[in-house]
Amino acid sequence: MSVPTLTEAQTETLHRTYRHLHQHPELSMQEHRTAEFIENRLAELGVESFRCGGTGVVGVIRNGDGPVVAFRADTDGLPLQEDTALEYASTATGNLPDGTEVPVMHGCGHDTHIACLLSATEVLLSARDTWAGTLVLIFQPGEETAAGARAMVDDGLWDKAPVPEVVFGQHVMPVESGTLTYSVGDALAMSDSWKVTVRGKGGHGSQPQDCVDPIVLGAFMVTRIQSVVAREVDPRESAVVTVGSFHGGLKENIIPAATEFTLNVRSLDPATRDVVLGALRRIIMAEAQASGAPEEVIEELSHFPRTFNDPAATAEVVRGFEAEFGADRVVESAPLMGSEDFGALAEAIGVPSVFWMFGAHDRGVLDSQEPTPVNHSPFFAPVEEPTLSTGVRAATTAILSRLGN
Amino acid sequence: MSVPTLTEAQTETLHRTYRHLHQHPELSMQEHRTAEFIENRLAELGVESFRCGGTGVVGVIRNGDGPVVAFRADTDGLPLQEDTALEYASTATGNLPDGTEVPVMHGCGHDTHIACLLSATEVLLSARDTWAGTLVLIFQPGEETAAGARAMVDDGLWDKAPVPEVVFGQHVMPVESGTLTYSVGDALAMSDSWKVTVRGKGGHGSQPQDCVDPIVLGAFMVTRIQSVVAREVDPRESAVVTVGSFHGGLKENIIPAATEFTLNVRSLDPATRDVVLGALRRIIMAEAQASGAPEEVIEELSHFPRTFNDPAATAEVVRGFEAEFGADRVVESAPLMGSEDFGALAEAIGVPSVFWMFGAHDRGVLDSQEPTPVNHSPFFAPVEEPTLSTGVRAATTAILSRLGN
Amino acid sequence: MSVPTLTEAQTETLHRTYRHLHQHPELSMQEHRTAEFIENRLAELGVESFRCGGTGVVGVIRNGDGPVVAFRADTDGLPLQEDTALEYASTATGNLPDGTEVPVMHGCGHDTHIACLLSATEVLLSARDTWAGTLVLIFQPGEETAAGARAMVDDGLWDKAPVPEVVFGQHVMPVESGTLTYSVGDALAMSDSWKVTVRGKGGHGSQPQDCVDPIVLGAFMVTRIQSVVAREVDPRESAVVTVGSFHGGLKENIIPAATEFTLNVRSLDPATRDVVLGALRRIIMAEAQASGAPEEVIEELSHFPRTFNDPAATAEVVRGFEAEFGADRVVESAPLMGSEDFGALAEAIGVPSVFWMFGAHDRGVLDSQEPTPVNHSPFFAPVEEPTLSTGVRAATTAILSRLGN
Amino acid sequence: MSVPTLTEAQTETLHRTYRHLHQHPELSMQEHRTAEFIENRLAELGVESFRCGGTGVVGVIRNGDGPVVAFRADTDGLPLQEDTALEYASTATGNLPDGTEVPVMHGCGHDTHIACLLSATEVLLSARDTWAGTLVLIFQPGEETAAGARAMVDDGLWDKAPVPEVVFGQHVMPVESGTLTYSVGDALAMSDSWKVTVRGKGGHGSQPQDCVDPIVLGAFMVTRIQSVVAREVDPRESAVVTVGSFHGGLKENIIPAATEFTLNVRSLDPATRDVVLGALRRIIMAEAQASGAPEEVIEELSHFPRTFNDPAATAEVVRGFEAEFGADRVVESAPLMGSEDFGALAEAIGVPSVFWMFGAHDRGVLDSQEPTPVNHSPFFAPVEEPTLSTGVRAATTAILSRLGN
Repeated sequence: MSVPTLTEAQTETLHRTYRHLHQHPELSMQEHRTAEFIENRLAELGVESFRCGGTGVVGVIRNGDGPVVAFRADTDGLPLQEDTALEYASTATGNLPDGTEVPVMHGCGHDTHIACLLSATEVLLSARDTWAGTLVLIFQPGEETAAGARAMVDDGLWDKAPVPEVVFGQHVMPVESGTLTYSVGDALAMSDSWKVTVRGKGGHGSQPQDCVDPIVLGAFMVTRIQSVVAREVDPRESAVVTVGSFHGGLKENIIPAATEFTLNVRSLDPATRDVVLGALRRIIMAEAQASGAPEEVIEELSHFPRTFNDPAATAEVVRGFEAEFGADRVVESAPLMGSEDFGALAEAIGVPSVFWMFGAHDRGVLDSQEPTPVNHSPFFAPVEEPTLSTGVRAATTAILSRLGN
Repeated sequence: MSVPTLTEAQTETLHRTYRHLHQHPELSMQEHRTAEFIENRLAELGVESFRCGGTGVVGVIRNGDGPVVAFRADTDGLPLQEDTALEYASTATGNLPDGTEVPVMHGCGHDTHIACLLSATEVLLSARDTWAGTLVLIFQPGEETAAGARAMVDDGLWDKAPVPEVVFGQHVMPVESGTLTYSVGDALAMSDSWKVTVRGKGGHGSQPQDCVDPIVLGAFMVTRIQSVVAREVDPRESAVVTVGSFHGGLKENIIPAATEFTLNVRSLDPATRDVVLGALRRIIMAEAQASGAPEEVIEELSHFPRTFNDPAATAEVVRGFEAEFGADRVVESAPLMGSEDFGALAEAIGVPSVFWMFGAHDRGVLDSQEPTPVNHSPFFAPVEEPTLSTGVRAATTAILSRLGN
Repeated sequence: MSVPTLTEAQTETLHRTYRHLHQHPELSMQEHRTAEFIENRLAELGVESFRCGGTGVVGVIRNGDGPVVAFRADTDGLPLQEDTALEYASTATGNLPDGTEVPVMHGCGHDTHIACLLSATEVLLSARDTWAGTLVLIFQPGEETAAGARAMVDDGLWDKAPVPEVVFGQHVMPVESGTLTYSVGDALAMSDSWKVTVRGKGGHGSQPQDCVDPIVLGAFMVTRIQSVVAREVDPRESAVVTVGSFHGGLKENIIPAATEFTLNVRSLDPATRDVVLGALRRIIMAEAQASGAPEEVIEELSHFPRTFNDPAATAEVVRGFEAEFGADRVVESAPLMGSEDFGALAEAIGVPSVFWMFGAHDRGVLDSQEPTPVNHSPFFAPVEEPTLSTGVRAATTAILSRLGN
Repeated sequence: MSVPTLTEAQTETLHRTYRHLHQHPELSMQEHRTAEFIENRLAELGVESFRCGGTGVVGVIRNGDGPVVAFRADTDGLPLQEDTALEYASTATGNLPDGTEVPVMHGCGHDTHIACLLSATEVLLSARDTWAGTLVLIFQPGEETAAGARAMVDDGLWDKAPVPEVVFGQHVMPVESGTLTYSVGDALAMSDSWKVTVRGKGGHGSQPQDCVDPIVLGAFMVTRIQSVVAREVDPRESAVVTVGSFHGGLKENIIPAATEFTLNVRSLDPATRDVVLGALRRIIMAEAQASGAPEEVIEELSHFPRTFNDPAATAEVVRGFEAEFGADRVVESAPLMGSEDFGALAEAIGVPSVFWMFGAHDRGVLDSQEPTPVNHSPFFAPVEEPTLSTGVRAATTAILSRLGN
């Protein structure tokens, strides 16, 4: 297997594409112009494509007999005011589902994912004789809200596209540009978010006996919830329960009728997730009973699936990476507690998947006294090189590790 | 002592005044037009007056040698959308201190207080020969925010006005119109309100170990606070601690840097108040330490003083009431847990005070299956008669009980 | 009505009786020798008597036509090592229900109650012509455990004895000897005690995920219980919930299978009692559910009924006291949060009752820098005079206030 | 390297030794007869020995030039009534530090550790030509209380014995007899135990306002402690905090003056341990302040150090095991949350150590529907073979992997 290098023109296109995308981010499930941009670029490259899941785009390249491999790039930006001072910084705005207009930024680096996959496509097309098989390009919307992978699967992704034997994906991260990191087995945490409406009975603060105080009840729920990770999770397993918001009441002497809080659960192991979610539901229900409160309402806000790197498939990809980049640029790491909806794509058809990280920052940024700008920061600005070419080479290498001659 | 009756013309003026005031409520400490209205009416009656504490108005009537008595009526409305269907319902608006425009309503019945005191003044002036002494009329702004009595005292009320030997005041209440109620000793609760800013250290919900979670901390504060009334207050004393609002965090998976809650304390006994406030401060400080959190900030929002009815002065007033209304219309009651800043006026000069309630509703309203509209309800609409004439007669009676021949 | 005075001989008998009783205390429901002593003394006085409720003794004196009045004295001692240095201090021992041998002391002063009632009987018998009616003398066992009044009623007390129109009782207290105190209406608190067995699932401390931790569960119950008095009881009502013991676990790294705690509730108002007991049961059950624990067991340990002084009957007795002792020796007080089972006697037949306190200490003891020895203290030693003669006079006065000519 | 096999006579001695030890267990730091037994056996084998740390015994075998290796076997039994039905079951008793007489059992299998090390010594002595160097045999008392390793080190173990370049140890476990398990890096958890005396101010349950309730305070400490593992420990690290006992109060209506609880902390990573212990101390101190309580006392009961398997040394041992037993009988496992004081021996001199497990049960026991008897169970009865010969072979193999020709 030999991985083709980017030509000067290909490199120039890569950077132009990246800057264009960076300047035109769109909110989750609203990536209309981004989808059109991708469709146009695929058409230029002679790749047939179709829409799937609204603003998702799927390209299919058939190059003779051979395995089918899928590669996913996510496409959405974030409701964030970019503060990077880049000349191609975003000034875009968008509208949240409730209609609020907000600034939009590619603050999680999905623009690099799109640009690198389009560039890898160009490279592979220009070297058709070095590989054989079918490549499915998945430009997935709505990763940030866990809506996009689900939307594509629900829209019949795997009925419309050839079913692959493995799904690849990658993410830019605040580690050293030019390096790759990966985990074997669990790679990222599952994430589940709930909104809990704590219902009580309001009234005047001087007459608590006529009320059911939902702030006291909510506080008991929050304190009780601490026991879940502390006592119900195997200490050798990983789980986090964060109550990220708690809102109730308008005035110090009026007991409100209800309050609400949101929580987020991170877990690596599905059995642990079941334990935690079950315990949370049990505690929330029982605490409402302890207050003699009306039944509270638990609303599921989002679920990010497991990101699990199949050990055999990962080993194959890593061997390719080590050959291409040198073993010292390819680092195994513990699973991260962050989350992704990438896993839902392979899970839907029961095939293995591999997901890795490529670095965003040069050493100067990483070694600085200043806090390193991380994903979702208004200051997150991957250095263009070697970040982008590393993303292209990693994608090409992974694909060729399966499809290469 | 004989209490003059209202003439037909006086009654007509009383009702016109009341309806005008009801239609033109103003927010606390912004009672500009109300103050002008009162000043004009006092001038019409030939009573000298001066401003005090911004929108407070003080009238002084000197009627020969005799004791000095003060009578207070509070003048502010509430940020409430009136929903009474009265033909003279308010459509007024006002601006909260933060600039927000809100509807305004005389939802606590202070319009009856003003109208009754102006009418009692008219009655007493028309019967100057039945009494002797000095009457100080205090039209006090900002009762709802506990700001007005303080503002008048701070503005030199008792330097500018004759110092009375007793201060009277009254309040309309959702009991039967035509009846009066009173307590001996404690009449209303003290009230103290705080805003507590719970400071933590924010971060991502998947990395709680790098954060100090202010929602968990705040929840522990709220649960811990329950032990104050339960364990530190003498069970035979009365105290309430209500956490009326709790707000922190924007997103389920982001640990905020801070959260804030407000609380209100009700107590009847000053020693109990000290116990409760001391325990709250101790717990809040210690819980912050338990979390390793930065020092939280406790801001005092308001303090309503004790409303204490001097037993001897109260007995004198009650004797007058019983003679005027009949003993069955004058009912002793347990102290109420509501609050007033009336007490600050007498407290500032160390003289006794007496505060009573007069009824607002006819029996039909009180006996109805529907919830009785109480003060601060958008539906609070005292029946005009006998409510207003009872307020006038009660005021006149109380004043004459001290100043009458 | 004129109250006979004690003769020298009667006084001598009174003191001898008291010292004998003080030296021979017995534990609750084991007052065998005390009962015999009382029976013998009644026989000496020519009063017919019968046993009721095991170690209870009832004497009946019929003295012509007239009302029936009952007077109760309780008879049990406490498992306490007397430390009074009195020459007639107790060295008695007894056996707790579980068989443990313990020292016994009349640490609550029931010996004064017996001696005074026997002496009052003697006085009244010697002045039969000054009164008419029937007097029922109730020497009740087991007050300390709330078992005795119940046992006598269950054993048919009111079938066997004439049914009185009022029941009287008195208690010695650490206030000034020679004075009496009383309350109108509520006099003492109701008391309810529970034992709660918190069931979990034990195991090794390193594997909490396989256990249900009953110590964590019990701790959540205790903290949650704080909200009952704080939020569910009208602040103007009185209630206390004390968790007096909590025991579980043997070793720091073994999670026990169960833990247990006991609690005691004090309340004055039956509706408040219902609120508190209902809330406790609700919270305990719901917290077990919140832990996914097996159902816990609540065992009722004891119930002390309301001690309510009928206002009219109390007024009659107080008028007698004031005439006999002077108004300055008869003091009205707020209800005490202590408890008694006296109320169960009158409650069983729906008649009024009156219960008052007589002082135990001279001013030197009360004004001393040392802590005043209170009931249940190993140092509780009422000064003999005027304590005992006051108790006799108070009993005689109360009885004659109803039966006297 | 070739590992000598046990002769028939050696096997017979091994079993006889084991049964004798099993029948004569002694409590921690009281292993007097066990120490004598070991000394006698070493003397029979011609091995010089000395006492160290009271009941510890150290044997030294010098066999020419070569590395120094130490091997530790722990020697104490448990206060447990044996219930195994073995013909050689223990009927021994002993006295706890407080004097209580208790039954004693080798319920943790330390008898197998002693027997196997003595047998391995015999085997190695009979094959002196196959190895060279110095072997230090450490028969350590008091493992169960974390006192023994510390006592030996404090008594100058490494001044008196040759300093080894590696320390080995092994433990019998309820896995399949004939198999070995090991971890690389962290092998067992650190363990720290505290006793916390929660001081309050006692009094009558009806007057909580005069008390500082130590049961409520302790309950708040226990609930607050749940947040340590939940919010302060990196979710990818392992930690457990168990409050294993909580005791306070004698009677439901008396608030005790103090209560006490014990807790145990398990952790793998020293930094995590610091975080947890620091947080516990901070919370306990601050909660006492929140109650206005006197300063509580934290007493450290025990500390079990890290059991860390040096990766290189472990790899060497495992290679030996795999050669001797076959790779399928040698299984890598995740670290266990149990604890050992073995690590303190190597830690004191900064040399690597390796600790592994050997199986106790045959498949019939493991596959049974009945719960598997684990260490510290009254039913823990390792099957004699192949358990004992496996322990001997594992010890011999590990030693020869370093000292063998």
